[in-house]
Amino acid sequence: MQPHEMGIAEAAAAIRERRLGAVELAQDCLARIARREPDVRAWQYLDPDAVLRQARRLDDEPAGGCLHGVPIGIKDIIDTADMPTEYGSPIYRGHRPAADASCVALLRRAGAVIFGKTVTTEFAFFRPGKTRNPRRLGHTPGGSSSGSAAAVADLMVPGALGSQTAGSIIRPASYCGVVGYKPSHGDFNLTGIKGLSHSLDTLGTLTRSAEDAMLLRRALLGGEAEDVGEPSPRWAPSIALCKTPSWLEASPQTRCGIEDLALTLSSLGARVGEVTLPEGFKQFADLQKTLMAYEAARSLAHEYDVAPQSLSGPIRELVEQGGSVSREDYLFARSASELGAQQIEPVFERWDVLLAPSAPGPAPAGVESTGDPVFSRMWMLLGLPTLSLPAFESPDGLPVGVQLIGARLGDDRLFRCARWVERALSEAGAAGGRGH
Amino acid sequence: MQPHEMGIAEAAAAIRERRLGAVELAQDCLARIARREPDVRAWQYLDPDAVLRQARRLDDEPAGGCLHGVPIGIKDIIDTADMPTEYGSPIYRGHRPAADASCVALLRRAGAVIFGKTVTTEFAFFRPGKTRNPRRLGHTPGGSSSGSAAAVADLMVPGALGSQTAGSIIRPASYCGVVGYKPSHGDFNLTGIKGLSHSLDTLGTLTRSAEDAMLLRRALLGGEAEDVGEPSPRWAPSIALCKTPSWLEASPQTRCGIEDLALTLSSLGARVGEVTLPEGFKQFADLQKTLMAYEAARSLAHEYDVAPQSLSGPIRELVEQGGSVSREDYLFARSASELGAQQIEPVFERWDVLLAPSAPGPAPAGVESTGDPVFSRMWMLLGLPTLSLPAFESPDGLPVGVQLIGARLGDDRLFRCARWVERALSEAGAAGGRGH
Repeated sequence: MQPHEMGIAEAAAAIRERRLGAVELAQDCLARIARREPDVRAWQYLDPDAVLRQARRLDDEPAGGCLHGVPIGIKDIIDTADMPTEYGSPIYRGHRPAADASCVALLRRAGAVIFGKTVTTEFAFFRPGKTRNPRRLGHTPGGSSSGSAAAVADLMVPGALGSQTAGSIIRPASYCGVVGYKPSHGDFNLTGIKGLSHSLDTLGTLTRSAEDAMLLRRALLGGEAEDVGEPSPRWAPSIALCKTPSWLEASPQTRCGIEDLALTLSSLGARVGEVTLPEGFKQFADLQKTLMAYEAARSLAHEYDVAPQSLSGPIRELVEQGGSVSREDYLFARSASELGAQQIEPVFERWDVLLAPSAPGPAPAGVESTGDPVFSRMWMLLGLPTLSLPAFESPDGLPVGVQLIGARLGDDRLFRCARWVERALSEAGAAGGRGH
Repeated sequence: MQPHEMGIAEAAAAIRERRLGAVELAQDCLARIARREPDVRAWQYLDPDAVLRQARRLDDEPAGGCLHGVPIGIKDIIDTADMPTEYGSPIYRGHRPAADASCVALLRRAGAVIFGKTVTTEFAFFRPGKTRNPRRLGHTPGGSSSGSAAAVADLMVPGALGSQTAGSIIRPASYCGVVGYKPSHGDFNLTGIKGLSHSLDTLGTLTRSAEDAMLLRRALLGGEAEDVGEPSPRWAPSIALCKTPSWLEASPQTRCGIEDLALTLSSLGARVGEVTLPEGFKQFADLQKTLMAYEAARSLAHEYDVAPQSLSGPIRELVEQGGSVSREDYLFARSASELGAQQIEPVFERWDVLLAPSAPGPAPAGVESTGDPVFSRMWMLLGLPTLSLPAFESPDGLPVGVQLIGARLGDDRLFRCARWVERALSEAGAAGGRGH
C-alpha cells in the first residue's frame, strides 16, 4: 500500500511506530496531487514547500498527538493564518486572516499537517467552484465542501474538514464515495469559520472510514472525546429505516438500495425496523430554508452592501429572500426546530440510529449545480448528528451513500453504530459489488 | 439641551425633521469626548475626521434608516473594516479586519455614524482596559463592555454596542447608570464578533433609555423588529420579584432597594408577586462557568498556542481550566441549560417579567477588577433576554440598576414592561432621589 492510500488511523500508527515519516507521507500525497489535480481541481491553495516544512518539523518531534504527521485538507471557508482564505468569493481574493480558526489550531495541536485549502462553493452556498467528481469527472462532486470530499475520495489526503448548513458534507460525501460526518449542532467550535446561518452551521469531516472521522473528532473536541473503540463482536445496533417526508424525491434505485440495505443489516444481526415521523415534520425541510435565508441575510449584510456586484445571483437572491422573511416566520421556524428536537427524542430511546438517504441519488451529471441537499435539511433543523457511509453503486457505477442519524449529542453512539454498519457492509461485500 | 445630551430617538427625530444635522451632532459629541476622554478613557480608537466624513455623507442623503445620523460606539471585540479591531489584546495590536461585522453593516444600513471603537477587557473576559467609571473616576465602569457603558453614561454618544457572555452588558450598565439590553440568545447575528463561548455569547446594547435600545434592536434585526410602541396608559405589567439563588451575595442596600422598588411598582399599578425557582437552579451559575470555560478553551486555542506570553494570567487560567473540564461535565451543563429553559417557561405564563439584581451593588472602588457577574450567569445559561434599568442610588451616590428578565424570544414583551417600569420610575422620581 502506498502511503497516500492510507487512512488517518493507519498513517498515524505508521508514523507513531516510525514505519513512516511525516515527510515521506506528505511527499507521496503531494505526488498524488500533482498527478490528479489537473483533472480533479480540489485545491484552492496548496504550497508544497510549506507542507514539507510542517512535515519536517513534525518528524523532528516525538509523535504526541493523535494526528501526528497526518495531512488534513481545510475547506476554504475556514481561516488559516499562514494561507489565504477566500470563502469561495472574489470579494476575499488573497485575504489572509489574522488567526487560525479554532479547529485549525486544534488540528495543529494534535500534530496534523495543515495541507492546504480545499475548494468551497461561494460562502458555502450554491455557486460551484472548479472541482470535479473524481469518480467521474463530468459530474459534480457535490457542495459546498466540494474540494474536501474530492481530495479525500481521490486519495490526495486521508481527511479534510467540511462544513454543513443544508447538506454540504453529507451530499458530497455520498457523491464522491467517502464518509461524511456532521456532528450535533454546537459540538465543534466555529470560531474563525465564515458563518452563513448560526442556528444551522456545523463543522464536520470527510474521511474514508468512520474510525478516521472519530480521530478527527477527538482532535476537534480538544482531545477530550472518549474513544468508543471497536464495537464488541457480539453487539449489534438497532436501526430504524426512516422514509423521511422527502422519500419520494429519492430515485427508485436509491429507495430500493436502502430497503435492501436494511434487509442486509438485519440478516447480519442488527435489530431493524421502520419509523414514521410525526405529520408536522413534513414542513421541516421548508423551515430549514426559512431559517437559513433569514440568518444568511444578516450574516452577509456587509458583502451585500459593499460589493453586491461581486456576489453571484443565487447568493443575492438568498440575501434578498432572507430579508423579506418576516420575524414571525423566523421565530416560528426556530420554535419548530426546538419542538421537533424534543419530539424526536423518544425515537432514540427505541432505536440507536435512523437510516435514510444521503442524497436523492448518485452525483448528477454536469458541474453547473452541486445537487440537492433535500435529505439533510430536516436533520439540520433538528441539530442531530449524521454520518454518510458509502453503501452501494448506482446502475452506472457511481457511489451512493446512506445516512445514519443519531440522537442529539449522541455522537458516540452514532459512531458505534456507523462502525458496525461499515464492517457489516464490508463483510457483506456490499460496498462495491451491488448494482440496482 | 445640547445635541450630545440627546438620546437616540430624540436625535434621530431631530435629524429626520432637519432640526439638527448629523455633522452638528457629531461635532458636539466629539467636543464632549475631547473634554472628558482624558478622565474617562472610554475609547480604544476614534478618528474625528472619519466620523465627520460619515456625518457629512449622511447629511447629503435623505434620512432613510431609523438611526440616520446617530453616533454609535462599537465595542472593540466587534470587527470594523475601516478601523482597527484589537479585541482588548496586544496579540491583535493594529489588526484591521477584512470586513465589518454583520451588526456594524446593519447599523450602517440604518444610517448610524460608526463613531469609534470602545474599550473592551481582553477578549471580553476579565482583564480591565483603561476605562474609568464616569460617575466616579476611581471606580470600575464594570466589564467587559467597559468603554461602551462609560461613553454612553458620560453623554459622549447616545448608544453603543456591547456583548455579554457572563455579565458584560448588564453589570457595566448598572455600574455606570445606563440601560443595558442583552437579547435572547441567538437573536442578534454574531458574524464578525470575536467569540468566547458560542452557547452564551450575545450581542447587546448600551443606551440611556429602553426606547433607544429598541431602536438599536430594530436596526440590528435588519429592520424587521416590530415597534412595540408606547405601552397604553391603562396597561400595567405583571412583575415577579425573583430572589435568585445568589440573592445573599447582593449587598443589604441592593436587596432592600429592590424590595422597595417592587412595592413602588405595585403602588403604581403593576401586579407584583414573587417567584421561587426550582431547587436545581442553584447550580446554574456554576454550570455557566463550566460551559464558558470549556468553550473558551477551544475558541482561544490559536492565541493560547501561538502567543501564550501575550495572554493575561486570568485568560490563561480560563483556557487551562476549560481544557480540563470533562466532556461529561460539559454535556451535563448543556443539558441543564436546555432543561432549565423548559422548566422556567411556565413562570412566564404567569408573569411578564422577573425582577432581580443587576449586580451585587454599585461599582466597586478601584479599577483592578471589573466586578462580579454573578447576577447574570444564570440568565445567560438559560438564554433569556434581560435588561438593566438605572433604579436607585447607593448611600454614597453611585447608580444601581435592576434587572428585568423576560421569556425566551419574548424580547418585545420585555421591552413593553421595561418602558412601563422606566416611566414609572421616572414619575415616582425614584431614578435619582432615593438613598438607602
